[in-house]
Amino acid sequence: MPTGSQRGHDLNQSPIRGLVPYARLAREKGKDIYHLNIGQPDIPTPESALEKVRNESDKIIKYGPSEGLPALRSRVRDYYDKYQAELDTEDVLVTTGASEAILFALFATCNAGDEIIIPEPFYANYIGFAQVCSISIIPVTTLLEEEFALPEPATFQKHITPRTKAIFLCNPGNPTGQLYDKKQLEQLAEIVLQNDLFLIVDEVYREFCYNKKFTSVLSIESLSQQVIVIDSISKLFSSCGARIGFLITKHHAIRQAVIKYAQLRLCPPYFGQILALACYEDSEAYISAARAEYMKRRAVLYQGLQRIDGIQSYKPDAAFYNIAELPVPDTMEFCKWMLTDFSLDNKTIMLAPASGFYSNQTLGKKQVRIAYVLNQEELQDALHILHQGLLAYPHSTLKL
Amino acid sequence: MPTGSQRGHDLNQSPIRGLVPYARLAREKGKDIYHLNIGQPDIPTPESALEKVRNESDKIIKYGPSEGLPALRSRVRDYYDKYQAELDTEDVLVTTGASEAILFALFATCNAGDEIIIPEPFYANYIGFAQVCSISIIPVTTLLEEEFALPEPATFQKHITPRTKAIFLCNPGNPTGQLYDKKQLEQLAEIVLQNDLFLIVDEVYREFCYNKKFTSVLSIESLSQQVIVIDSISKLFSSCGARIGFLITKHHAIRQAVIKYAQLRLCPPYFGQILALACYEDSEAYISAARAEYMKRRAVLYQGLQRIDGIQSYKPDAAFYNIAELPVPDTMEFCKWMLTDFSLDNKTIMLAPASGFYSNQTLGKKQVRIAYVLNQEELQDALHILHQGLLAYPHSTLKL
Repeated sequence: MPTGSQRGHDLNQSPIRGLVPYARLAREKGKDIYHLNIGQPDIPTPESALEKVRNESDKIIKYGPSEGLPALRSRVRDYYDKYQAELDTEDVLVTTGASEAILFALFATCNAGDEIIIPEPFYANYIGFAQVCSISIIPVTTLLEEEFALPEPATFQKHITPRTKAIFLCNPGNPTGQLYDKKQLEQLAEIVLQNDLFLIVDEVYREFCYNKKFTSVLSIESLSQQVIVIDSISKLFSSCGARIGFLITKHHAIRQAVIKYAQLRLCPPYFGQILALACYEDSEAYISAARAEYMKRRAVLYQGLQRIDGIQSYKPDAAFYNIAELPVPDTMEFCKWMLTDFSLDNKTIMLAPASGFYSNQTLGKKQVRIAYVLNQEELQDALHILHQGLLAYPHSTLKL
Repeated sequence: MPTGSQRGHDLNQSPIRGLVPYARLAREKGKDIYHLNIGQPDIPTPESALEKVRNESDKIIKYGPSEGLPALRSRVRDYYDKYQAELDTEDVLVTTGASEAILFALFATCNAGDEIIIPEPFYANYIGFAQVCSISIIPVTTLLEEEFALPEPATFQKHITPRTKAIFLCNPGNPTGQLYDKKQLEQLAEIVLQNDLFLIVDEVYREFCYNKKFTSVLSIESLSQQVIVIDSISKLFSSCGARIGFLITKHHAIRQAVIKYAQLRLCPPYFGQILALACYEDSEAYISAARAEYMKRRAVLYQGLQRIDGIQSYKPDAAFYNIAELPVPDTMEFCKWMLTDFSLDNKTIMLAPASGFYSNQTLGKKQVRIAYVLNQEELQDALHILHQGLLAYPHSTLKL
């Protein structure tokens, strides 16, 4: 029997996946689980967009253009006006989710062996994307004590080598929920310019900023030929399963390469594009309502965490994530224990151990990522369960 | 300004793409074009399946399982019963089109620098997939004079090196329209077994066989741990835009690796899966009707080509493609000329020069691929235009 490839065997799997069997066992035992571990919003997809899909009357679901439907590209271009981005329709390419946009961006900017610099903690799948492209992630560690602030430009400069092709940010940040502001981005822009790098920014949580103002790197004029933005309707319009993302760049050669990668997979999904097209139509009221709801949940989460002794956290600026340090030696063990050994009124919670968001998994060992994708009442209840769980956990330093 | 990656620059683009601007110009001049150049069927998608999508009532379009919806995997498993494939549901993984299934299969079986052997002419995008995976395609040339018959096992054996990981077939063949039968596959199986290789077979045209019986490699028991089958609803159910394909294998480690690649991109498109699930329900009548229609078109095409002096062709077994050698020195030039310089009653045709289907593009220089995806009347008309075009073309050896 032939063996599979070494690279397939070695491909990173988010360590959070390791908890899935325990969650299944817990469910089989009849426990209810509050899922604070994944970024699957519970907010309904825009009803008017779902209605458009229902009214779709095409008789043949044909291949579309590899770059995406022209109407969708044009509408997304218009959407960016509010972020002072001077875009042409051709700058917007439709991808099969942000995941594909990230892969295309890495393939189009980096050769095998090249390096990209990413502040950590970062979205766990970036590791796998880098492996698929045979490039190295050079992490710049940010700290909970500093509320995961963007490091000084000099810190980035220190990590730049002849193989560095790009600085990659997630702004607002998953898993941190923090926002890099205009001043920080402009400082970083100088490093990017001086070193002739690309700046790739995953901005999928852009619309969920609660106090501070969001700045898109697309608005930084000096970087117009160096910026690649990753976007998606998954979180914005609660349409994760539609698999529609975007890659936006004014860099001609990058766009040409991305189009060739896009041609290889023929086209993005048709129904998802129909949904997306409708989502961006009159989207402001929907987005505002979603933002207001997440903002209330953020307050519930922040206050709830503050009330538990021994938890270290902060008030996140944006997205719907928060990292918290728990009074336990190893959150992977604690999260597992919450599924296997703990329940309150037959309910428990599932959290994401933060080690998976660091390139060096010994970092963040005491941290978890909490996604506030539950309604306020459920979130309150989940926090109560967390508190009681921490009190009952044998290895917790939190005692009654 | 930073430059893009060399690999992005070098990524192969199907040479057929070079004709697209000329087709646009022709349309702008008001010419109607019969598209015999692409595999986009004109047969309607199953209406009952479209209706299922229209009746979809989910309020949130959520992430689904990375492996695909369990109901779809199970239904596809059942579909394979008719091909004597002993499958479990877990052997079927849903992908975003056959394109993704091919990429996953290559990543999971081959390391960078490995080799796969493919009979040529082959589907042009295989070159790009191999580039993305940094592997080499070792072509085994098949000949129009031999109706593109599968080469003898000894010919494959000759091309096997220590880096060979797989033999890759498209059966029925795109672009040839030819079928490898049970006996040929069993002979090849011996080589695959002896050399401990994978056999990856793209069977997306399986249901369109017109006289000979189709054999799926999934039915060859001795190969059960070495076979990976690529499948898709694109052609089968005329649903190219839905982006739903399948990777089927009983090899545990390959499946585990493929699942990790699948987790990176989170999940296949939701609406496409809903459509696919409905397509496979009571599919026999739909498939039979489509097959009957293509069979009639095949007759029209075959008879039409026979009637034109100087064209060399054959009666294809399967799929909806045919390769023909034209009495011209270079079909790329001829196909371009048909768009730029020729029309009959303000109509012309677009064909796919076959050079793009060979690894060495000097091969097949006089050949074209003709896709019979038009109704019989249009196909008749298109053949008439081809005939008149050949008579008028200055470099044609066909004279009145």
